[in-house]
Amino acid sequence: MAPITDAYESRVTKEAAIIMRRDPVVYTDLNRDPGSGATRKQLQNFKRDGFMLLENFFSTRETLALLEEVKRLSRDPEITKREEAIREPGSDDVRSVFRVHVINKMLSRLSRDRRLVNIARQIVGSDIYVHQSRANLKPGLHGKEFYWHSDFETWHIEDGMPNMRAVSCSILLADNNHQNGPLMIMPGSHQYFISCIGETPDNHYRKSLRKQEYGVPDPDSLRFLVDQNGIRSMTAPAGSVVFFDCNAMHGSNSNISPYPRINLFFVYNSIENSLGNPKYGLKPRPEHIATRENVSPIKPVEPDYLRDVSKQAHH
Amino acid sequence: MAPITDAYESRVTKEAAIIMRRDPVVYTDLNRDPGSGATRKQLQNFKRDGFMLLENFFSTRETLALLEEVKRLSRDPEITKREEAIREPGSDDVRSVFRVHVINKMLSRLSRDRRLVNIARQIVGSDIYVHQSRANLKPGLHGKEFYWHSDFETWHIEDGMPNMRAVSCSILLADNNHQNGPLMIMPGSHQYFISCIGETPDNHYRKSLRKQEYGVPDPDSLRFLVDQNGIRSMTAPAGSVVFFDCNAMHGSNSNISPYPRINLFFVYNSIENSLGNPKYGLKPRPEHIATRENVSPIKPVEPDYLRDVSKQAHH
Repeated sequence: MAPITDAYESRVTKEAAIIMRRDPVVYTDLNRDPGSGATRKQLQNFKRDGFMLLENFFSTRETLALLEEVKRLSRDPEITKREEAIREPGSDDVRSVFRVHVINKMLSRLSRDRRLVNIARQIVGSDIYVHQSRANLKPGLHGKEFYWHSDFETWHIEDGMPNMRAVSCSILLADNNHQNGPLMIMPGSHQYFISCIGETPDNHYRKSLRKQEYGVPDPDSLRFLVDQNGIRSMTAPAGSVVFFDCNAMHGSNSNISPYPRINLFFVYNSIENSLGNPKYGLKPRPEHIATRENVSPIKPVEPDYLRDVSKQAHH
Repeated sequence: MAPITDAYESRVTKEAAIIMRRDPVVYTDLNRDPGSGATRKQLQNFKRDGFMLLENFFSTRETLALLEEVKRLSRDPEITKREEAIREPGSDDVRSVFRVHVINKMLSRLSRDRRLVNIARQIVGSDIYVHQSRANLKPGLHGKEFYWHSDFETWHIEDGMPNMRAVSCSILLADNNHQNGPLMIMPGSHQYFISCIGETPDNHYRKSLRKQEYGVPDPDSLRFLVDQNGIRSMTAPAGSVVFFDCNAMHGSNSNISPYPRINLFFVYNSIENSLGNPKYGLKPRPEHIATRENVSPIKPVEPDYLRDVSKQAHH
């Protein structure tokens, strides 16, 4: 096996490490007109913060149409029996549905919505495809916390994503307030890769790598990141959208409030950053978790598909 | 055994119930001058909301003196070996120290601080004693959530507290923000007693009553309470104080932020509301959890004890 020459090594030593990011954040030249999508100012802020929160991105009507579709989807026996549907432990309630950009017509169109695609393309500076998609239904009262993590750490190690050239897009379908466990991001954290503690593997081959044990950032690194710029909670009304860098440190607290959190989640990866082999000989994760086969550039669709649907729903 | 004539029955049937509060909230006549302590307006708001948040109640100097004392206490082997000290699961770190109003000189004085005592007396309309006291050290990163509950429900059933005539006082020794799992209260919830689901006992005698199984409010009742006036998070700087009614529905989400939460907690009960027998033949809880023996009216002390200590600490 070749010597390790990975700029973003993780889970291989007994020490944590903070590695400076080597990749651009915004791949479009910000000295030029950035074209359609986000404004230059928004892209500059994204570069600095690692995220942008766009309030009321979708109209109320569009948001309601999406919400209804996600609710319908989560109750559709044809969907809930699939491996893409993840249930709450000890319950029949569906918590997440993966690969919604493939298995549902409206959400497939949404994933190609020109308004979203333009911004994602600006950020990664190329054509894009969907690396992962998901509808999340986090219930009220018993919503669990999600500890701090960088998605890129997982995607790099477990999926073999080569570089930091992907952007996540979270579409809020319910109001996110300070009580219902909103997404929290550490501004500026995307500039640092937190190499996580792992055991030194004998042969760089480990089949049983488990998320709970590896890939968890250490307390000192988290305190270092928070000391930079604190924590920002993505509180915003339904219909808002958060774009955040693949390496932004994020997490969420539990939700004992009765307010559920429902969102859609698309990860746009640069077509020039498609997956290689997972690290340490890990077996590739299933296609519905990490797109490996179906990599072709998204052709944007115009937003009127949602207006049409919304009209239908009212007749 | 006598038939049940308890106005606030709980944990005895398979149905939850919402029972209107029968007791006053503020026992002082609000048509008269309320005397020293809180203003009439503050007491009126307390009556309506079930809590009052008093920002920067203690000076920075006093707050630092208290914080240092709590930190010292939590590391003092003479304290941490006692049954009053509760450790984090799987750790030597002390999470709570009970009965601090007895076992520590500064905190004993604090519990009798005239500024606190005056307000508690106004609310319960009589002399008071400390029903329970506690220093809480909720760590950052792994602070656990605390699900919704009414303290009175527990104190009524497990401690035999007759009526709603006690007030809790939480003294914030660290900044509480939206990220570190602050105390959340449902305004107006103190007007409703949520009778919790339990098994119908054969003989109203059950020794093995466990907090995890009984005394947990049901989802419908919680939604009912939240529909009244939502949820308020007690975010405030260190040195602030929250007084809240014994029956206010409250809880807190987890804390994955690195910011710890440290507070002191005193429960002031009316001297006319001291404990009877626990319900259902339950064994009384230990004295450091619920004061049963040591019931005598608090004699207030003047606040200068903290200024003195603070000076000493600086010399």
